[in-house]
Amino acid sequence: MDHTPFLDDAYAQAKKSYDEGGLPIGAVLVASTGQVLGRGHNQRVQRGSPILHGEMDCLQNAGRRASYRDAVLYTTLSPCMMCSGTIVQFGIPRVVIADVENFEGDVPFLESRGVTVEIVPHAPSIALMRRFIAEKPDLWAEDIADT
Amino acid sequence: MDHTPFLDDAYAQAKKSYDEGGLPIGAVLVASTGQVLGRGHNQRVQRGSPILHGEMDCLQNAGRRASYRDAVLYTTLSPCMMCSGTIVQFGIPRVVIADVENFEGDVPFLESRGVTVEIVPHAPSIALMRRFIAEKPDLWAEDIADT
Repeated sequence: MDHTPFLDDAYAQAKKSYDEGGLPIGAVLVASTGQVLGRGHNQRVQRGSPILHGEMDCLQNAGRRASYRDAVLYTTLSPCMMCSGTIVQFGIPRVVIADVENFEGDVPFLESRGVTVEIVPHAPSIALMRRFIAEKPDLWAEDIADT
Repeated sequence: MDHTPFLDDAYAQAKKSYDEGGLPIGAVLVASTGQVLGRGHNQRVQRGSPILHGEMDCLQNAGRRASYRDAVLYTTLSPCMMCSGTIVQFGIPRVVIADVENFEGDVPFLESRGVTVEIVPHAPSIALMRRFIAEKPDLWAEDIADT
């Protein structure tokens, strides 16, 4: 499967959030058929939510599902431990990450729990996140509880 | 600090959810002063949410916070990997668990990441969860993605 359309889709979520004054991190959940099951972006600013990271908002929007065994999660930024734990708990077998430069996350943890991780650098996602961290370092620190 | 009032408080959340037809799992976030910062319960049925486990709903309700270093999370059931990852990511230093009989969770993971875990068996929480699993095994399986 060509990852580019889905990374672009996740980036569009990130850009939407940035334009709203929020954290520019987006995610898309995709079935093996290519069907998009859900999209989302960080909602810390927009909804005052500490738990709705991009990946979590995406999974929330994908709704209740019997299984995630057929799904791939695309995300613009390497998942934090909350989102990584969620990926493992939900049994999502594969994650495609656009940016590990601005935040490393914990890829070894995901792999140790059987998740296949593909790092596919996506220049717009990386550039937007870098710009955001420079513009709003305090908000970024709050989002990763690094305060 | 006496844990009983806060375990009772988390149980009241679980019971409220059970009475609504939902999963009977509740949580309370408490500051070291004893102030309750947030309460919540599983919202899978009530809000159709796959991510609002009891602990997540509690943290959502506690809102945006600069730090969790001063907080204790009380939960009626051992945290799943989503909730465990969140506890680690948020830097919550201490978790008190009422029930590890109906669901083990991954206490060693929490401890390996520096979280202090106290298991304080709370009979009403254990009995209610046992009753729920017997009554609605499919809903329970869905909630832990064991399908």
